[in-house]
Amino acid sequence: MTRSVACPHIGRLPPGPRNAISDVAGVTVGHATLAEGEVQTGVTVLRPHAGDPYRQRVPAGVAVLNGFGKSVGLLQVQELGVLETPIALTNTFSVPAVAAAQIRACIAANPECGRSLPTVNPLVLECNDGYLNDIQRMALQETHYAQALAAASADFAQGAIGAGRGMTCFGCKGGIGSASRVAALGDGRAFTFGALVLANFGVPENLVIAGRAAPLANTAPAPEKGSIIMLLATDAPLDARQLRRLALRAGAGLARTGSVFGHGSGDIALAFSTAYSLPLSAQSPMPAVALLHDALLDPLFQAAADSTEQAILHALWRADSVTGRAGHTRLALRERLAGWPPDAFAPRPLH
Amino acid sequence: MTRSVACPHIGRLPPGPRNAISDVAGVTVGHATLAEGEVQTGVTVLRPHAGDPYRQRVPAGVAVLNGFGKSVGLLQVQELGVLETPIALTNTFSVPAVAAAQIRACIAANPECGRSLPTVNPLVLECNDGYLNDIQRMALQETHYAQALAAASADFAQGAIGAGRGMTCFGCKGGIGSASRVAALGDGRAFTFGALVLANFGVPENLVIAGRAAPLANTAPAPEKGSIIMLLATDAPLDARQLRRLALRAGAGLARTGSVFGHGSGDIALAFSTAYSLPLSAQSPMPAVALLHDALLDPLFQAAADSTEQAILHALWRADSVTGRAGHTRLALRERLAGWPPDAFAPRPLH
Amino acid sequence: MTRSVACPHIGRLPPGPRNAISDVAGVTVGHATLAEGEVQTGVTVLRPHAGDPYRQRVPAGVAVLNGFGKSVGLLQVQELGVLETPIALTNTFSVPAVAAAQIRACIAANPECGRSLPTVNPLVLECNDGYLNDIQRMALQETHYAQALAAASADFAQGAIGAGRGMTCFGCKGGIGSASRVAALGDGRAFTFGALVLANFGVPENLVIAGRAAPLANTAPAPEKGSIIMLLATDAPLDARQLRRLALRAGAGLARTGSVFGHGSGDIALAFSTAYSLPLSAQSPMPAVALLHDALLDPLFQAAADSTEQAILHALWRADSVTGRAGHTRLALRERLAGWPPDAFAPRPLH
Amino acid sequence: MTRSVACPHIGRLPPGPRNAISDVAGVTVGHATLAEGEVQTGVTVLRPHAGDPYRQRVPAGVAVLNGFGKSVGLLQVQELGVLETPIALTNTFSVPAVAAAQIRACIAANPECGRSLPTVNPLVLECNDGYLNDIQRMALQETHYAQALAAASADFAQGAIGAGRGMTCFGCKGGIGSASRVAALGDGRAFTFGALVLANFGVPENLVIAGRAAPLANTAPAPEKGSIIMLLATDAPLDARQLRRLALRAGAGLARTGSVFGHGSGDIALAFSTAYSLPLSAQSPMPAVALLHDALLDPLFQAAADSTEQAILHALWRADSVTGRAGHTRLALRERLAGWPPDAFAPRPLH
Repeated sequence: MTRSVACPHIGRLPPGPRNAISDVAGVTVGHATLAEGEVQTGVTVLRPHAGDPYRQRVPAGVAVLNGFGKSVGLLQVQELGVLETPIALTNTFSVPAVAAAQIRACIAANPECGRSLPTVNPLVLECNDGYLNDIQRMALQETHYAQALAAASADFAQGAIGAGRGMTCFGCKGGIGSASRVAALGDGRAFTFGALVLANFGVPENLVIAGRAAPLANTAPAPEKGSIIMLLATDAPLDARQLRRLALRAGAGLARTGSVFGHGSGDIALAFSTAYSLPLSAQSPMPAVALLHDALLDPLFQAAADSTEQAILHALWRADSVTGRAGHTRLALRERLAGWPPDAFAPRPLH
Repeated sequence: MTRSVACPHIGRLPPGPRNAISDVAGVTVGHATLAEGEVQTGVTVLRPHAGDPYRQRVPAGVAVLNGFGKSVGLLQVQELGVLETPIALTNTFSVPAVAAAQIRACIAANPECGRSLPTVNPLVLECNDGYLNDIQRMALQETHYAQALAAASADFAQGAIGAGRGMTCFGCKGGIGSASRVAALGDGRAFTFGALVLANFGVPENLVIAGRAAPLANTAPAPEKGSIIMLLATDAPLDARQLRRLALRAGAGLARTGSVFGHGSGDIALAFSTAYSLPLSAQSPMPAVALLHDALLDPLFQAAADSTEQAILHALWRADSVTGRAGHTRLALRERLAGWPPDAFAPRPLH
Repeated sequence: MTRSVACPHIGRLPPGPRNAISDVAGVTVGHATLAEGEVQTGVTVLRPHAGDPYRQRVPAGVAVLNGFGKSVGLLQVQELGVLETPIALTNTFSVPAVAAAQIRACIAANPECGRSLPTVNPLVLECNDGYLNDIQRMALQETHYAQALAAASADFAQGAIGAGRGMTCFGCKGGIGSASRVAALGDGRAFTFGALVLANFGVPENLVIAGRAAPLANTAPAPEKGSIIMLLATDAPLDARQLRRLALRAGAGLARTGSVFGHGSGDIALAFSTAYSLPLSAQSPMPAVALLHDALLDPLFQAAADSTEQAILHALWRADSVTGRAGHTRLALRERLAGWPPDAFAPRPLH
Repeated sequence: MTRSVACPHIGRLPPGPRNAISDVAGVTVGHATLAEGEVQTGVTVLRPHAGDPYRQRVPAGVAVLNGFGKSVGLLQVQELGVLETPIALTNTFSVPAVAAAQIRACIAANPECGRSLPTVNPLVLECNDGYLNDIQRMALQETHYAQALAAASADFAQGAIGAGRGMTCFGCKGGIGSASRVAALGDGRAFTFGALVLANFGVPENLVIAGRAAPLANTAPAPEKGSIIMLLATDAPLDARQLRRLALRAGAGLARTGSVFGHGSGDIALAFSTAYSLPLSAQSPMPAVALLHDALLDPLFQAAADSTEQAILHALWRADSVTGRAGHTRLALRERLAGWPPDAFAPRPLH
């Protein structure tokens, strides 16, 4: 029996117990998946905490590495520095359905939303799964959002599931991946950092794994029309300005896998903190927050890059092969690597 | 019989023949309006040219004065500097329905959209009409978008129509307004400049008309939860960078009406040029464009500010009173000004 | 004897006791002025507090309305959200001399600056006074910065002084102006807000005073090559993101005076808060700050716009006529308005 | 005799004949170096073409990966999308002297600069060489700028020279590095792309060479206080928006060397095109430019990442050891790698 190639650990920082974004306390993730014939797609929902983000808003920052994308909600996050819904991931043409679902869910929980209370800002990020999924059918319904939300758990599946169902990464099957790191600041404090990616980018011949070029034959040559969404969470007390800085460092992890933020790839990172929340109502007291000093951010920047790279590898390693629209198939990475030695990506001495 | 107060002309630049954005050749506007009981809302569509913007993309730039808003599509416009759909305006909670309609319309016209061709970037800008309209019903359907698109014409109505149906401006009935200016550059060339606004902002006591404070009694006191969308068109050959600069000057016109870009008001301007278009296909030849020199922009900047201010006044002057949700009423400005002399805002000597 | 025209009060908010930026406790301003023949220029220094901002950094945000300018230091303010020097204003070609002076002053006070401690970020904003001043001489020396810094006081002169010495505004003599407002939040709290401008912008025929067009004959027609720097201070507890929002509202005040943020006018606003400071050293404890809720910002936004407009009028009203390079003269506004009734700009009933 | 370790070639694109930024026709580079005792610093000047950029302005875009830096001139480049001086690189505290030199050089060549013609925008980018250089002396004089400018040539030295004299990279001697790539578009056209870096960043234990972790012992542990400036040139016809996109991809190359854009590292990329220039005078005709279609940018994005990574390696490989301030020494990389096999970084099969 052939042992498969092991997924290498990225960097020197240790992971949290789940090596997933849910190592940041309170963060949960759920999926709804459609996988029938021509329809291979889904929605993934990340809840930043167990409450209603519309009432307990979460500080957040956005880094747009490549704005060739149709995500909604980022404009207001950039202005106000907060999330006010769970974060939803889906395919490009299902963004409206999921955004509508977020609005209805908020109204259901907050009957004055859009009347005496402000409207809510849907937050839906997307990639194009049109190679495997018949995106034109717009098959996702609002109920699928509710289903994914209800399924949110600290223990969640990765790979070809939820929004990741139809995604392609370096010509292999891509999708949902997650990872975490624990970053010690050197002053006795340590913070947990997590990443979750929707990985749908990359040209096969450019794949790099743990620093080693692992070019794959390009079995279905095509210009890159992918994207990657990178969600980052931490329990460190950071504000929107700092979280934008943090989000940008996801790009360093992405670059190490062989991406050059290709023209057609909408590469977007969003980071949030669970250390405190901000009330919807101006009448509620604001929390007194002692932020982390910027000069202490480097371990978190390292964690952002490392956990993003690791999450991409997890997406590749955990995704099963999928056949979908027009008989198109994306093989799992492990099938592409069949026959490689199990330690192909293990650390080797330089000399 | 009482003559009503005349709407003053703003600035020294002359208007085009329609004094509307459709004075920029090729630009047309259409509305679909829902006006029954609790539902007072609609959608307005602006076509930048008679063709399909997905295939003939239009250079565009965005200025976000206040990003407290739920518009979709701006991220990609900022990255790529082009529009690829007509521009749609609607209420906050109808954005998803209209975005879905734009996607379906693009697929219908371009069957490979999202497959061998890139996905399309819906472009929907919004204000919250929740005072007059039961926004929670999400009453607009995708068919209303198609209806507004089909109705697009160089001659179009203004006021409480289309997306403007339920909007409020300075405590009066607001909505759709438009204006145009002809800007001579001093070198023999003249360009046409047009603005179209969806005006839903302003606290009654702050209203300024042609420089004169015209405070209105605040009959329904409430924190400002409005917004304004400002669309600007010109036939001058400008690129995305220049169009962003132009869009920002809409803010100068907005400020003159008494706005300070209030916290709750999503104030967004988008400017486009009809002087040339850019092909979808990288195989098509790119146009050789001699842009306008930046040092010649001042007359266009003046036109941007003046036509925006004028368009806001047109929205106020042309909107009829509307009664909607929960019996709420917004009176037309001319009813609020009843009894004022017809020349109240005419130029008067300073001394 | 002719009484001169009174400077109108802008808006409904009351000023602080000095009606100057130094009404924000701790803020002081000093000037050094060169006024001999062809050299009509200077430097103005604003100290945000009595300490060393390199060690006690001040939260700040920047709004670039028009980036046609040569200010230095803004890049880092945008990234880190803090000031770390006093703010200096001067002419365009003297920026390097003043920046060098700031570096040397910081080294003198902090001998490890640039060695074991970080380098310092000079912050120098500028306008071009080349019409009245022989800017090519680069006459300002580093000592003038020290002189202005030493002169900083809560009571400071305005008009054709310091960096304002050679500036032109709407074809009249411009320069330094300042104003303040007290903004009540409605919850019992009130904050002080101050503006200081270096006003060097505007085409004479576009001047608007308190909403009334006051076109002046253009005695020296020329394309606008001006600029305005707008500094805003408040004692409200705001962070960098909120201060950027605040800074942008200075543009609303600027627009009301007749500016459309002309191409050649580098229009830049910088806002800071004195409510707290941030330590240089990551070993020092960070302050626990309860920020103002964004939904309470509107009175401050109003104050930002009103005090900026007021400060521009103060610059115009307080500047004396100056004759400088090549015999060029800029008359004081009050000379241009000679013969106008003292109440020309007083509130008048609309009807 | 021991053969030294060979510098690996990065990526699959071929270099130009010089493998330096001067492979882009017209681009030249010159240095002035101070290397005496405590003073180990200099200035490097890049001329985008043989003419005067003040009169023939060069399209340019900026990507700020980390704005913790004191560079001057970027604000105006971001607004107007052009360079108007040669690009100067130097140490942090010498920025004012070099900026002053640029102003004087422009005045000397254009006697109406700042009078009837606009002021000039100095463009000086910097890193902190304070470990090896006594930065507090501010030893560079304006004459050194003139000297570097006069020395500009297509054949120029790299390593510990010019602005690179005192720089440190991953704990080794850093400095100036350059590389080029030829990018074929697939439609028969090929463009040349070049990078020049001032490399002063990186923690020794993070160094990655051609994908292989090459951690060095940290002989002088210190928080990262470095920076990197990345200049990119191409002969492809791109505008400012596209050049900003291109500049951002330098970050991908930077990340591959082990950087996570550390807090204290001002990481800034600036890209320009030599394909056309824009006249200073609005009376001069504007060029009619057919830009490259964005969908063709990927080979250039790849070239931006690869040539940046290669330029960093060239800086490390070509810099000799330097001893400077307080007896501090930075060893050349090749001394740190002494004893490693010559092919340590040559491609090796994965399995």
